[in-house]
Amino acid sequence: MTYEVKSLNEECGIFGIWGHPQAAQVTYFGLHSLQHRGQEGAGILSNDNGKLLRHRDTGLVSEVFHKPSDLEKLTGQAAIGHVRYATAGEASIDNIQPFHFKFSDTQFGLAHNGNLTNTESLKKALESQGAIFSSSSDTEILAHLIRRSHHPEFMGRVKEALNTVKGGFAYLLMLEDKIIAALDPNGFRPLSVGKMKNGAWVISSETCAFEVIGAEWVRDVKPGEIVVIDDNGIHYDSYTTDTQLAICSMEYIYFARPDSVISGVNVHTARKNTGRRLAQEFKHEADIVVGVPNSSLSAASGFSEESGLPNEMGLIKNQYTQRTFIQPTQELREQGVRMKLSAVSSIVKGKRVVMVDDSIVRGTTSRRIVQLLREAGASEVHVAIASPPLKYPCFYGIDIQTRRELIAANHSVDEICEIIGADSLTYLSLDGLIESVGLETDAPNGGLCVAYFDGNYPTPLYDYEERYLQSLEEKTSFY
Amino acid sequence: MTYEVKSLNEECGIFGIWGHPQAAQVTYFGLHSLQHRGQEGAGILSNDNGKLLRHRDTGLVSEVFHKPSDLEKLTGQAAIGHVRYATAGEASIDNIQPFHFKFSDTQFGLAHNGNLTNTESLKKALESQGAIFSSSSDTEILAHLIRRSHHPEFMGRVKEALNTVKGGFAYLLMLEDKIIAALDPNGFRPLSVGKMKNGAWVISSETCAFEVIGAEWVRDVKPGEIVVIDDNGIHYDSYTTDTQLAICSMEYIYFARPDSVISGVNVHTARKNTGRRLAQEFKHEADIVVGVPNSSLSAASGFSEESGLPNEMGLIKNQYTQRTFIQPTQELREQGVRMKLSAVSSIVKGKRVVMVDDSIVRGTTSRRIVQLLREAGASEVHVAIASPPLKYPCFYGIDIQTRRELIAANHSVDEICEIIGADSLTYLSLDGLIESVGLETDAPNGGLCVAYFDGNYPTPLYDYEERYLQSLEEKTSFY
Amino acid sequence: MTYEVKSLNEECGIFGIWGHPQAAQVTYFGLHSLQHRGQEGAGILSNDNGKLLRHRDTGLVSEVFHKPSDLEKLTGQAAIGHVRYATAGEASIDNIQPFHFKFSDTQFGLAHNGNLTNTESLKKALESQGAIFSSSSDTEILAHLIRRSHHPEFMGRVKEALNTVKGGFAYLLMLEDKIIAALDPNGFRPLSVGKMKNGAWVISSETCAFEVIGAEWVRDVKPGEIVVIDDNGIHYDSYTTDTQLAICSMEYIYFARPDSVISGVNVHTARKNTGRRLAQEFKHEADIVVGVPNSSLSAASGFSEESGLPNEMGLIKNQYTQRTFIQPTQELREQGVRMKLSAVSSIVKGKRVVMVDDSIVRGTTSRRIVQLLREAGASEVHVAIASPPLKYPCFYGIDIQTRRELIAANHSVDEICEIIGADSLTYLSLDGLIESVGLETDAPNGGLCVAYFDGNYPTPLYDYEERYLQSLEEKTSFY
Amino acid sequence: MTYEVKSLNEECGIFGIWGHPQAAQVTYFGLHSLQHRGQEGAGILSNDNGKLLRHRDTGLVSEVFHKPSDLEKLTGQAAIGHVRYATAGEASIDNIQPFHFKFSDTQFGLAHNGNLTNTESLKKALESQGAIFSSSSDTEILAHLIRRSHHPEFMGRVKEALNTVKGGFAYLLMLEDKIIAALDPNGFRPLSVGKMKNGAWVISSETCAFEVIGAEWVRDVKPGEIVVIDDNGIHYDSYTTDTQLAICSMEYIYFARPDSVISGVNVHTARKNTGRRLAQEFKHEADIVVGVPNSSLSAASGFSEESGLPNEMGLIKNQYTQRTFIQPTQELREQGVRMKLSAVSSIVKGKRVVMVDDSIVRGTTSRRIVQLLREAGASEVHVAIASPPLKYPCFYGIDIQTRRELIAANHSVDEICEIIGADSLTYLSLDGLIESVGLETDAPNGGLCVAYFDGNYPTPLYDYEERYLQSLEEKTSFY
Repeated sequence: MTYEVKSLNEECGIFGIWGHPQAAQVTYFGLHSLQHRGQEGAGILSNDNGKLLRHRDTGLVSEVFHKPSDLEKLTGQAAIGHVRYATAGEASIDNIQPFHFKFSDTQFGLAHNGNLTNTESLKKALESQGAIFSSSSDTEILAHLIRRSHHPEFMGRVKEALNTVKGGFAYLLMLEDKIIAALDPNGFRPLSVGKMKNGAWVISSETCAFEVIGAEWVRDVKPGEIVVIDDNGIHYDSYTTDTQLAICSMEYIYFARPDSVISGVNVHTARKNTGRRLAQEFKHEADIVVGVPNSSLSAASGFSEESGLPNEMGLIKNQYTQRTFIQPTQELREQGVRMKLSAVSSIVKGKRVVMVDDSIVRGTTSRRIVQLLREAGASEVHVAIASPPLKYPCFYGIDIQTRRELIAANHSVDEICEIIGADSLTYLSLDGLIESVGLETDAPNGGLCVAYFDGNYPTPLYDYEERYLQSLEEKTSFY
Repeated sequence: MTYEVKSLNEECGIFGIWGHPQAAQVTYFGLHSLQHRGQEGAGILSNDNGKLLRHRDTGLVSEVFHKPSDLEKLTGQAAIGHVRYATAGEASIDNIQPFHFKFSDTQFGLAHNGNLTNTESLKKALESQGAIFSSSSDTEILAHLIRRSHHPEFMGRVKEALNTVKGGFAYLLMLEDKIIAALDPNGFRPLSVGKMKNGAWVISSETCAFEVIGAEWVRDVKPGEIVVIDDNGIHYDSYTTDTQLAICSMEYIYFARPDSVISGVNVHTARKNTGRRLAQEFKHEADIVVGVPNSSLSAASGFSEESGLPNEMGLIKNQYTQRTFIQPTQELREQGVRMKLSAVSSIVKGKRVVMVDDSIVRGTTSRRIVQLLREAGASEVHVAIASPPLKYPCFYGIDIQTRRELIAANHSVDEICEIIGADSLTYLSLDGLIESVGLETDAPNGGLCVAYFDGNYPTPLYDYEERYLQSLEEKTSFY
Repeated sequence: MTYEVKSLNEECGIFGIWGHPQAAQVTYFGLHSLQHRGQEGAGILSNDNGKLLRHRDTGLVSEVFHKPSDLEKLTGQAAIGHVRYATAGEASIDNIQPFHFKFSDTQFGLAHNGNLTNTESLKKALESQGAIFSSSSDTEILAHLIRRSHHPEFMGRVKEALNTVKGGFAYLLMLEDKIIAALDPNGFRPLSVGKMKNGAWVISSETCAFEVIGAEWVRDVKPGEIVVIDDNGIHYDSYTTDTQLAICSMEYIYFARPDSVISGVNVHTARKNTGRRLAQEFKHEADIVVGVPNSSLSAASGFSEESGLPNEMGLIKNQYTQRTFIQPTQELREQGVRMKLSAVSSIVKGKRVVMVDDSIVRGTTSRRIVQLLREAGASEVHVAIASPPLKYPCFYGIDIQTRRELIAANHSVDEICEIIGADSLTYLSLDGLIESVGLETDAPNGGLCVAYFDGNYPTPLYDYEERYLQSLEEKTSFY
Repeated sequence: MTYEVKSLNEECGIFGIWGHPQAAQVTYFGLHSLQHRGQEGAGILSNDNGKLLRHRDTGLVSEVFHKPSDLEKLTGQAAIGHVRYATAGEASIDNIQPFHFKFSDTQFGLAHNGNLTNTESLKKALESQGAIFSSSSDTEILAHLIRRSHHPEFMGRVKEALNTVKGGFAYLLMLEDKIIAALDPNGFRPLSVGKMKNGAWVISSETCAFEVIGAEWVRDVKPGEIVVIDDNGIHYDSYTTDTQLAICSMEYIYFARPDSVISGVNVHTARKNTGRRLAQEFKHEADIVVGVPNSSLSAASGFSEESGLPNEMGLIKNQYTQRTFIQPTQELREQGVRMKLSAVSSIVKGKRVVMVDDSIVRGTTSRRIVQLLREAGASEVHVAIASPPLKYPCFYGIDIQTRRELIAANHSVDEICEIIGADSLTYLSLDGLIESVGLETDAPNGGLCVAYFDGNYPTPLYDYEERYLQSLEEKTSFY
């Protein structure tokens, strides 16, 4: 076991570009900046005058494209790319995107970030008509829906398909002559449009990719919108008017890179605000603030500024830790061998520490960090969490689909405090979160999806309804 | 080209353990925590009841030991390990340590951190007596000196050899029945002794390894000291009394991990103090403080606390950047594609930024970061460096052996400011540095070696004397 | 360029087993013995109580399964496997078999050796009904046909599908509870049934796999036959009665391993017979016989015994030659650097050599070997080919689909003799070939498909008809 | 366990070239043709105007040089190379040759084929003078002797060193301005000189390398000779006149490639002659001859021609078998899974087989092949060995250093026949061997070393004397 700092996982990041002589290379760098959204696999599909070329594999972007030829063979002026996170046991190359569908008359590529809620019923219906699925991902469904639609025009078939799938989705579709992007009616997942100096249009899950490739942000894709990019430029359309913004609040809290801007709000700033607000809601005496690296450093800095307590580097993350590491044996672990995170005794010894973290999932990691700080000599450890208790599963693209994994689903704050061994435990209030992010919108919950905190899902749950109801009965099953 | 944050390089880290059933595994984790001291190669040599076993290769610790069997074959209750940094072109496995010397009658292993100043003359003298060197490293010399000594006892031969080599060195010698550690008479390189819960003695270049493996710090090895660890415990001796502490100040400024404690001073705290002092010496108006990640975050935090300016995450380092990355073409670089570091426009736009960095070597990196910040919209960029100007080469273990690589060797602060395109440039004063570290000693320069700043070397330069004098004539040869 | 001994390529080998606790391991060894039938990729799909598990990749069997865990994870008592040869540019993992089709209600695996002749028209028809193909291979078609059939029973659907596909095929279908094997109505490709000592049934493209795994040959699968193996044993059925044996004669001439038995005739013996007959038809004086290693050694041995000329090792093939070899530059090639094959001057010097080879495709290889023998001092080189001139493409599973690649399509024997620089050139007669193989059957051409020699195809050519007619106009396009 | 066809191992092959613009590439192809002499490691050291460059690693030549850059970096007009076989457990890169010795004033490279008999005493003497050895190979000794010699001229030092080492050796020494080659006073190991079309001189353990690179054989290096190649051409000298030819007979029997010529005799021809003679000495009735592939095919062909029995392919070696193969479990082995060799039942069934092999070492392989043939239906198996019984160890470069490994050391021919389960066992007579090779010389034993057969060593055994005497007492320790 290692000090895996979080067991929450985003499902994927997508990137597309039209109009650049080195489209695949730019996509490579774009995906590299989206690597935090998925480390299980990556792929790029380029378009060389209507010919689609693809390279994909399991591993990090740098592993998938480890020879220059891996990129060089992807010629053409347009490309889409994907980084994938996947649940254990499904690390098959078959599921790595973009998918590439070839037909006798045409072909297209497809990349997807999100999770559909009516996968199962759609799949059964399609199979009963003879459809064969080549992957276990839900992404393929859109392709089948498009191919089976009887609408006379291609865009009509795409819109029909988009109105058939339900849940959270950001799609990139590479046709022989254009890229089509589409966002679900609630805008659960972020998706932004940018422009490069040479005029190329780019589209990305996060704006951090724009900083990296020197592109300028143009605007975010709106819920229910469909965007077409081709040699004539960019064109915005919509496939539905029944929309309402409910962007995933975990993007601000944990997933997105701090330099990204989502719906006009910088992620680092939002986190810093949660830290400030958390400091206001915090009711204990302490000497120093210590953020859990790396995701909680912004919140810790806000907490420090608001509280006046010094912000210290009391926890160090080893930057060379990799997935391939040989793990310590049980015996060595008990003797204290830890690889990813260590507490700095010269800093925390004798101090009352506010340990700031962004969230608690299972509680096991928090318990270990509290223990690390105590072993390093902290006299008190007050845990301050920059988000409300995580109580409900997500069905729109985050990898929590059962309440069994969530300590707060079955335990009160006091119980959790005891379980993790802290002197106190403070969660940010839900209002505190919504106000800290502060989107300019009059949508419910300030335009955020906060269903993991309050159980109010912005859409029907379709195939997941039953699973959700069952999950309400489940007991947390760990520690 | 990439935004390599620093072109200074430490030459190696060492770790040793005696008395643990999984000695090689513990050494692996120890080396992992010393990885920042050398990424070119690594090796472990274990001692299984007098039988020495070794595995070494080029690459990171996790690459060198990528199969469990790589470690499992290194049986025994004692081990020494090494991480190596090397100058370009010498990335041969022949130079990866620990070395393993086998004789008809005995054998020993040897690991070394530092640089000798009389290598060349010793090598010539030994060769004229028929010696053959199997590597291009200076480490082997000690082995030849020991084998050729006519002192009747082994420890006498080791002491004779230690008095013959000059310069900076921390050695670990694995004999069939003991580990011997030795430090040079100035203690240029750090070396500390710790103890594990099971009673095993450990010795490490930095104390951060102790936190990782759950060992407790016992004491630092002193200049001129020789330490023997065997089944009877630990024994401290010395091979010379002509000693004077002059620990490398760059360890505090840049090399060491922030959680390490050297000569009683925590590295993060020392850096934070340099940031505070730098804020006092800084004479400009500004809105926010931005540290260059990761090495300057401590100094930036100190600067922020002292100045009252908010400490913001205006520069983001991509944590997935690896050596194996495909680099952007010249064309893409010009369009703004950058992989390692990006500036956050939503944070720096319109702001007067204090960019805090630990040091300037060539100036090329600083110039690029200033440019990044300006492109991201910073209205002013004031560069504040948490150390004095680097003007002179080092001969004790840091990879700067010519003044040509040092912009401050030939340029005034004003010239450098102009070259890097900053609105102002402030270096920390030498007194400021010495007082910020604040060692408890009455040695000159507060027990620090500051020769790179003032050219006053604590020892004769031997074989390097001539090279040094030549270098005083050299002109900086870049940008 | 290297001395690639042949540019003819078989398309694949298949192996299946039911009823063995280590089914995947046995399949691994079976595939290893079929490696000569395809080196581009390999895969195994096992059946663990109805759960299908798969591992596949590009490369040799030993490369695809390079970790013990690659095999160990394929648990279960049944398995099917595949080795694949593929045309250039299609070395994608998507095309590596067995395929694994997953449905909401069931799943199956599929492996295929052969080539369909109505792929294109079937694919178009299926796509117009909304089908999506995930590979560019023709194998998938069978799966779509089965899934779309409206026959009430599964076996009925399979038979309907088998009657719809045309051309050469040997299929292995792994269902949750059985293996189904099927052979095309002409039996173009070999397929045999065997039994292991523990009672497990095995099925293989060639009987050499039986020798390797210690299985006993039971009988060959007959044209138009369908074989079902499950926990109740083996059951033979047929999907058509319109059958006629026309087994690929190139299996005897070149593809199959010499220790395999096809339709009751051992391949080595058949080749030796062609050598004997060739010696009878050969009309020149000579001193020694030299076979081109390795495929022509049997024929050379027969030629030697019949002619009384000594059989000498005048050509040596380097057994360490691998696909990964760095190739000699043009300059080095001209100086004589050759890696795969060398002529032995001490054997051939001053001798009149009969160089026995199994076939001539493009003529480039023959020309080089003749030149090698001359450079090594042969006074005369008489080329004797143990098969008739290759003039027509194959559409049933051999990788010659155009006459442009065949030197004999456009050149007389005399012209070829001149082109390859031989003193004489003798091809085996068609009757000689048929009589040498000597199958016990009253089917036309002694039960062999000899269309590459005489252009009389045993079936309609369907989608290839037009391509074939065009190819009659084509000129050989090389040397 | 697999059917490893032989457990005898040659110790190394060497190749050198002077005067070719692509010297390293030519050496690569030369080493490739010498690959059969050692598969454990390989290396090339090139000379670019006095600058020596090296690449070496464990593995086959194609694995060691797997990137074009591995060769391209070895610039220069001269090179030496080495392929290495090593005993288990010593597969360390430290022992891979050529060695590269660097001194302050000069440098040289060294490659060695053979085994010294006074290694131990020389090593002790040198160490007592302070020498440190960097490998466990005996090759390094020559370098130490040269460096410690007080002879005023370099060639004098080399000659002095060559007169100090004893045993079997062929050396290649790359100096900054020349190559020096030397052969031991008995010429135990083969070494030949050739010339390329462009005038470059080449030197190789076997002449097969000349065929491959298009060089012409010039002459063999003679016992006690020293050859100097530089820009002025080639020069032959000698370091001793006390010489007597005793070339290793196992080179003819098993090691060398059949296309090589040693001392004027082609290896294939010599083997064929042993087969003919063996047929004369063979006293049993039989139906067919089957050679054990690949090394015994020449002998089998001679046996067949002399006896009139047909030479059949009754044993097939899988050409795709590689070191990296996953091995069958014990359980599968018992069921008959074998990977390297299989018997062809359709050929051997009901036949009285003469199984021709080149030698018997332990007997385990022979026993297995006999069993394979019986399982495949052979009615009788008569084993005919094309060399006399192996009874004594070799100290000059073959990896048999104890009689424990040799079944014939302790068992009569009748006992061996029973152990291996044959119907009869016939060994070639010693006279038969000597006459079959038929060197033109009046040296004892026809110029061959036949000590493994009769125990008469052509030189004193020095450090091995005691080990040899002990070994006379040893019992064979297997089956």
